[in-house]
Amino acid sequence: MKFNKTFNTNLIKLAKKNLHNRITFIGLGNMGFPMGQNLIKSGVKVAGFDANNQVTENFRNSGGCNFQTFESAVQESDAIITMLPNAKIVEKVWSDAFNFAKKGTYIIDSSTISPIDAKILAEKAQSKGFICADAPVSGGVMGAQNASLSFMVGTKNEDFEKISKFLTPMGKKVFNCGEHSSGQIAKICNNLCLGITMSGLSESLALGVKLGADPKVLSEIMGVSTARCWSLDTYNPIPGVLETTPSSRDYENGFSMELITKDLNIALDCANKTKLDLDLSKASQKYYETIKNEGKHNKDFSYVFQYILNNKKI
Amino acid sequence: MKFNKTFNTNLIKLAKKNLHNRITFIGLGNMGFPMGQNLIKSGVKVAGFDANNQVTENFRNSGGCNFQTFESAVQESDAIITMLPNAKIVEKVWSDAFNFAKKGTYIIDSSTISPIDAKILAEKAQSKGFICADAPVSGGVMGAQNASLSFMVGTKNEDFEKISKFLTPMGKKVFNCGEHSSGQIAKICNNLCLGITMSGLSESLALGVKLGADPKVLSEIMGVSTARCWSLDTYNPIPGVLETTPSSRDYENGFSMELITKDLNIALDCANKTKLDLDLSKASQKYYETIKNEGKHNKDFSYVFQYILNNKKI
Repeated sequence: MKFNKTFNTNLIKLAKKNLHNRITFIGLGNMGFPMGQNLIKSGVKVAGFDANNQVTENFRNSGGCNFQTFESAVQESDAIITMLPNAKIVEKVWSDAFNFAKKGTYIIDSSTISPIDAKILAEKAQSKGFICADAPVSGGVMGAQNASLSFMVGTKNEDFEKISKFLTPMGKKVFNCGEHSSGQIAKICNNLCLGITMSGLSESLALGVKLGADPKVLSEIMGVSTARCWSLDTYNPIPGVLETTPSSRDYENGFSMELITKDLNIALDCANKTKLDLDLSKASQKYYETIKNEGKHNKDFSYVFQYILNNKKI
Repeated sequence: MKFNKTFNTNLIKLAKKNLHNRITFIGLGNMGFPMGQNLIKSGVKVAGFDANNQVTENFRNSGGCNFQTFESAVQESDAIITMLPNAKIVEKVWSDAFNFAKKGTYIIDSSTISPIDAKILAEKAQSKGFICADAPVSGGVMGAQNASLSFMVGTKNEDFEKISKFLTPMGKKVFNCGEHSSGQIAKICNNLCLGITMSGLSESLALGVKLGADPKVLSEIMGVSTARCWSLDTYNPIPGVLETTPSSRDYENGFSMELITKDLNIALDCANKTKLDLDLSKASQKYYETIKNEGKHNKDFSYVFQYILNNKKI
């Protein structure tokens, strides 16, 4: 009896392993390329595709599967993962995939898109017999390269475990956020709060600096008081307060103005559609967008501190 | 030689002990009364005074020293501590005290006032031969009652140790923030950041709730992500997410709209005087002031979540 049970468990494990044997990964940008590579490293066969044919070929040459067409890759895949710039492109790619994928194929979107769009997409995918999830990430390009991303997953509870198995080779944490679109809600609410906290903290620190405070001492005290937050104690926007932050390397190689603005725009669009009037969200978005439009789209978002301290005057 | 040194050290210790033997405490409100009581409990003789004579008498009847006049109390005190509603009153009381206090008396203000005012006061006090400090607190009425306040002290480095000895019977932490007014800077920057973080977090959580997220799950995920902050993981504004927060007791007995508005007004006044234009600070202040003026001045400041979710609509 016991032997049989173990034997069956092993069979199931084997079946599960096979299940993850082939993945089509679409969108091989700064994030998608290393994510796909980490899937390959874990022993999965990955067919990679990108709008840029050269990138598609590069991926194939560095361990990707060799498929003649997108159609055949999707047909023979157990899962499809998308990592794309916006909802429009995700919708286009998913629609294409719907035409070729087997019923029961897992379709996972790791792009950051509006939760409202994600919900519509999930309904479509399910109506066509696919198992789907929204699974946006945090951790940036470094996280994608080091397989240390966090995935925020929105899917049916009974599908979560299987979905998370596709994702674990690319990340450290996989959160079960709830039903379809909950992953995108968590991502967008987190980043909205992050964007506001960073710019609000920057206003507070700029005031402290103007009044003559030592930034390091002020940050230490606030860091053990009620102003404690990640933007202060882990990602301090003042150069030299913490050694490893983007602010201490001229705000380079961080979370760009481009990306925080994109996330805040998604959040504000959702707020509009749900009839919420969010004054701090709007003020924060305005900071980042203005800085972005001044040619600083690649600067880390914590550069907002310098903007508040120096550029913006009454 | 060694014996003499030890003997001298003991003499100094004795002298220091005596030094704290009598304190005049001015301002016996919700904060000042229990603070003064905690000083008495620690063995210090405390003469307490309040604009309300009945309160002054109550304090005397519950262990305070019996002095005929404010003048004689101040004359015979080693330290004067003020805990008053605003800078104008502090200035008036300090000016009175200057007339009677011995040179070298310690004068400490634990009120929350503008750092700019605190600096002017400190200059006056020093020019008249007193040793002074700004030492605003965090921890609220509960902290005052339980002697668990945090003091943020601005004074000369060489005076910090002596100053902190006067304060320790009333609190758990005493921060050395730097030169005169640095205590007020730390307090006001901390509370400005707190006010913004709470209202920004509330905007993010309100959006999540509107989009259909489970507040508890959303808070848990954000709490281990980049949106992590004290307002989220310790003082969550949504009822039921954390058991012990004001939000879970109908926003009663917390940090009132009245007080957060006062602190944000001080911060905005300082920003104006230092030529900083702080958009999120202004938006946040507007939230709290509007709610306060709607008759909810005693509600905890985290009630801003309900205001954003329900009262304020496009």
